[in-house]
Amino acid sequence: MSTLYVIKIGGNIIDDPVQLESFLIDFAELKGNKILVHGGGKLATKLSKDLGVESELIEGRRVTNEETLKVVAMVYAGLINKNIVAGLQKQNCNAIGLTGADGNIIRAKKRPLKLISDGRQIDYGFVGDLDDSSVDAQAIYKLVQAGFTPVFSAITHDGNGQLLNTNADTIASVIAVSLSGLYTTSLVYCFEKSGVLRDVNDESSLIKYINAEEYKELKKEGMIHSGMIPKLDNAFEAIGKGLNEVCIGKADALPQLKDKTFGTRLKTEK
Amino acid sequence: MSTLYVIKIGGNIIDDPVQLESFLIDFAELKGNKILVHGGGKLATKLSKDLGVESELIEGRRVTNEETLKVVAMVYAGLINKNIVAGLQKQNCNAIGLTGADGNIIRAKKRPLKLISDGRQIDYGFVGDLDDSSVDAQAIYKLVQAGFTPVFSAITHDGNGQLLNTNADTIASVIAVSLSGLYTTSLVYCFEKSGVLRDVNDESSLIKYINAEEYKELKKEGMIHSGMIPKLDNAFEAIGKGLNEVCIGKADALPQLKDKTFGTRLKTEK
Repeated sequence: MSTLYVIKIGGNIIDDPVQLESFLIDFAELKGNKILVHGGGKLATKLSKDLGVESELIEGRRVTNEETLKVVAMVYAGLINKNIVAGLQKQNCNAIGLTGADGNIIRAKKRPLKLISDGRQIDYGFVGDLDDSSVDAQAIYKLVQAGFTPVFSAITHDGNGQLLNTNADTIASVIAVSLSGLYTTSLVYCFEKSGVLRDVNDESSLIKYINAEEYKELKKEGMIHSGMIPKLDNAFEAIGKGLNEVCIGKADALPQLKDKTFGTRLKTEK
Repeated sequence: MSTLYVIKIGGNIIDDPVQLESFLIDFAELKGNKILVHGGGKLATKLSKDLGVESELIEGRRVTNEETLKVVAMVYAGLINKNIVAGLQKQNCNAIGLTGADGNIIRAKKRPLKLISDGRQIDYGFVGDLDDSSVDAQAIYKLVQAGFTPVFSAITHDGNGQLLNTNADTIASVIAVSLSGLYTTSLVYCFEKSGVLRDVNDESSLIKYINAEEYKELKKEGMIHSGMIPKLDNAFEAIGKGLNEVCIGKADALPQLKDKTFGTRLKTEK
């Protein structure tokens, strides 16, 4: 099988044009098949504010009402996605920008009402949840084999005409898992740190390899900072489902992927 | 050669959700290979207004400044394009939403400075002009052969990282011409009238066939209303370049394409 990288970048890179262009150059230079998944950055928040669109936060989760959905569809699938595609084309990387609706590639389920701690039933709105059957791997395969580099924004659909807002980390891991039968697949999360750190304030305390046991220990000791936990939970779940490797590290270290020294590498074995 | 329809819809359909859904059902039911090209509608104007983005009109042409480009990228390539794609997926039409940047399919040239009547040099901003070599027909062919139905918004790029705003009528005709060597290609313009009318206020005065000579006569007599002229000039130019047919008519008459009674059909012969 040939190799495939599924690389996720977050808002910190997207919000900084200089960092973004530098990342796109590195991404374009990366040999082998590859897919980019991007988050949203601060642009959607800014646009919402400028338009007076209010969106509620309940227990740390944002409610995607109709107006917020319009904003994220515009910003993620329009402005950010197409600028990334144009930026990659500039580097001779044949990018094609997609949402989950395009080619029916990612069909999500609208999140059901959720009972929260105070007994209320919460409707998170137009949020799309994914499971292992959400992605049409063959459709992505066809595009990759045709020479395109898919670039996914965090917008999906329900197959019934409704766009949905889906977590970009989850999209990346579900895509990577679904393609692991067709390619030797690496899932790569880029974020603002060099990887999993023993000391969150010390970039030199990078843990180069971590297995699920060690991760559990570090969590217990409180060494893993809160924002990392869903990302790593997600990543450890994915690696158990056929991925070749999962790495997490800093975007500007992307060229280190080829000699396998990028960030922290998650291992299934002890 | 198999057939291909390149169908362009304008703002009047996009602005009306009921009419749009009805059109998408008809489009999905149309047999054969097909491509949809859509304009912008009033949403971009509304969003510009809500955001306080001003764009100058010079001699009837809108200047696309940096902020206006952001708005059209968001509205055309994000909101409208992805809602059309989701709407087509609902009808089991395997749509894939694209700009000219995606797959490097339409590479435009930023419009050069233009000398206008009062002697001023005008910069129309981020407007992309097309010529016969702008479209990568093979890239579209690959997508169509892979079973996708391309849906183009009126956003292109210059190949150097810059998105551009391009006239949707022009995109449709240039795509149709470029694919006429690979398919028996029909270019179909949908607009608010039943076709070319002898009397603009009388839908029953539809001209079923028109050739270039007759068009010239009607223009001379002032029978063709002003908004139609660039559309028909464009269409007659395209039909001379290898297209099988060009039709112009009302979106809700789309099912009549199959028995060749849709709107006005342009003919090259006298």
